[in-house]
Amino acid sequence: MEIERIPLQKHGDSRGMLVALEQDRNVPFVIRRVYYLFATHDGVHRGRHAHRHLNQLAVAVRGSVTFLLDDGTGPVRVVLDDPAYGLHLGSMVWRELYDFSEDCVLMVLADHVYDPADYITDYAVFLREVRGPVYQEGLAACQSL
Amino acid sequence: MEIERIPLQKHGDSRGMLVALEQDRNVPFVIRRVYYLFATHDGVHRGRHAHRHLNQLAVAVRGSVTFLLDDGTGPVRVVLDDPAYGLHLGSMVWRELYDFSEDCVLMVLADHVYDPADYITDYAVFLREVRGPVYQEGLAACQSL
Repeated sequence: MEIERIPLQKHGDSRGMLVALEQDRNVPFVIRRVYYLFATHDGVHRGRHAHRHLNQLAVAVRGSVTFLLDDGTGPVRVVLDDPAYGLHLGSMVWRELYDFSEDCVLMVLADHVYDPADYITDYAVFLREVRGPVYQEGLAACQSL
Repeated sequence: MEIERIPLQKHGDSRGMLVALEQDRNVPFVIRRVYYLFATHDGVHRGRHAHRHLNQLAVAVRGSVTFLLDDGTGPVRVVLDDPAYGLHLGSMVWRELYDFSEDCVLMVLADHVYDPADYITDYAVFLREVRGPVYQEGLAACQSL
């Protein structure tokens, strides 16, 4: 699965903490978009989509959130609750976000600006695309039995 | 003064809030570095420098912080306390940051990776550089009286 939990160097001193994310250093892509989620309501689930091409690096800069991730082979659960850890999500990973703490601020860096055409919002379509022609053939063979 | 407080569009719905910063859309430069300050100790002052070339966009994504800004013509005070406002700081602006709330997370986008040579950490040097040759001549004329 194109998913990696990346430890980020904390530059701490008597003043407080600083973490820096830099293109071609600890960010494995060109940064064209930075977005952040905050004031997420209690019990909310977000995400429920995959991206065909987008690369992202997510950091819970405050509070905590849980990711349920799936590259078509089954789900993996990742909790982000530390500003010094980033979650790198490559393309074709289905994600669902939930258990946002009241104070959660989730910051996400992405390598492209917003493009609705890059989203897959139907899990069945995602499975077909991620599993490719072999899966299609298997499915067709099964259905013809 | 090359300082601008920029309102950022909030994409809110029943789930919560999202703000997106995008290159060539609401970010007036190429994003090469994203850093964030957190767990800042009580009473701390940060900054106390200017950049010769760096462009930055700062957002208090959580909590609040005060900027004291000076382009050589005198100080301006700006409070950041809303995730939907960005502060654009051009080059040659002396900044001091203080009154960090306990929960403050200050996120900053910049158009270059870290470069120590771009920092001016001496206020007198900053004034000389920002005020240019005319200031130097005035200073020299004054001192020769």
